[in-house]
Amino acid sequence: MLTLYHCMSARSFRPLWTMEEMGLGYELKMLPFPPRVFKKDYLGTNPLGTIPYFVDGETRMTESCAIPLYLVSKYGPTPLNVGVDEPDYGKFLNALLYGEATLTFPQTIYLRYTLQEPDRGLDGAASDYVKWFGARLRAATAVVADNEYYCSDRFTIADICVGYALMLAERLQIDHVFSDPVRAYWQRLTQRDGYKRALASQEKAAAEQGLVEPPMTRAAG
Amino acid sequence: MLTLYHCMSARSFRPLWTMEEMGLGYELKMLPFPPRVFKKDYLGTNPLGTIPYFVDGETRMTESCAIPLYLVSKYGPTPLNVGVDEPDYGKFLNALLYGEATLTFPQTIYLRYTLQEPDRGLDGAASDYVKWFGARLRAATAVVADNEYYCSDRFTIADICVGYALMLAERLQIDHVFSDPVRAYWQRLTQRDGYKRALASQEKAAAEQGLVEPPMTRAAG
Repeated sequence: MLTLYHCMSARSFRPLWTMEEMGLGYELKMLPFPPRVFKKDYLGTNPLGTIPYFVDGETRMTESCAIPLYLVSKYGPTPLNVGVDEPDYGKFLNALLYGEATLTFPQTIYLRYTLQEPDRGLDGAASDYVKWFGARLRAATAVVADNEYYCSDRFTIADICVGYALMLAERLQIDHVFSDPVRAYWQRLTQRDGYKRALASQEKAAAEQGLVEPPMTRAAG
Repeated sequence: MLTLYHCMSARSFRPLWTMEEMGLGYELKMLPFPPRVFKKDYLGTNPLGTIPYFVDGETRMTESCAIPLYLVSKYGPTPLNVGVDEPDYGKFLNALLYGEATLTFPQTIYLRYTLQEPDRGLDGAASDYVKWFGARLRAATAVVADNEYYCSDRFTIADICVGYALMLAERLQIDHVFSDPVRAYWQRLTQRDGYKRALASQEKAAAEQGLVEPPMTRAAG
């Protein structure tokens, strides 16, 4: 049984979306965001206090763009994966890292200094990294202006990894830095059944588990 | 021919180290750090202005932890890779993302607001992310306290991806946050011939190409 610890529409949405696209069975454990503040006993499960936390037998993973690659490699074959002999293999791997390290981390700095710690006087860092995010999005614009998907002419976990960064920017209301091609690309991705099933799945789990979201999450939503 | 655009001991050191461990031939193009400031015509090569920039035929990559995975998958088999059927496959993939997104990005915030833009008054963000880095290192401590290598009882690119984050912390002089096991692990990695060859390779290329390092790089070194 695959188990995913998840917060509503947080970056653990990437493995959730992947499992829905692949039709895999899983248990979804909902947590308030951030769990290290609002559910301290979660530290007994994941000492880092971060999400995602993913369990498959003896395997434990914490990185939201590594879990999709694990899933498609372990539970494939699936068109969501790109093989080493395909021309876009390097572009595919690059997108997995780019989606998280380059496009998601800078947004968490904005989140921290505007929504979580607004009184720190560090708005300068928040706005610096929104600009930084916008500048790094140029690479995505160059790709999606001429392509329906990020690589290999089909939907893959590269779209999930890059796409989630766009989902987060929309939630944080910093999507004014999107170029038109990036905005259109994200709109295309949200039309997918797998994306809609992932949204429905987290809503259902939250209702069943009586998840109470802290105010900050609502602000970020 | 593999081509790597690289700055001295910057995160492009990861693919350089990987190519040395694998004994691959490559061309190393040295740039002053950061190239988008000190070598503006580099934007014609990589519009993001970032390093690494890696070229293999039609393949172009920019993410320092994706390139090692590309190299071991494309130019293996090699013990530096971990196969999908090995027990530590998930731990291996997780380490590639963890080394960059979780352990390296926070250090770049420190670098920016102390060495690059010291007059911004954003020291608070710099020190926040040194603490954040130290806290996230607990996961590495838990692994390397009982293991010579990060996974699979052998040296792999997981060690290169996590290890480079430790190399950077040492250069930035924020390695006071290392636990004893993390410090000992990094010392073990620096004893490797492949690591020493990578250091020698960048020194040789810098001398041959007449690289002049800006003062900031020296401060960071």
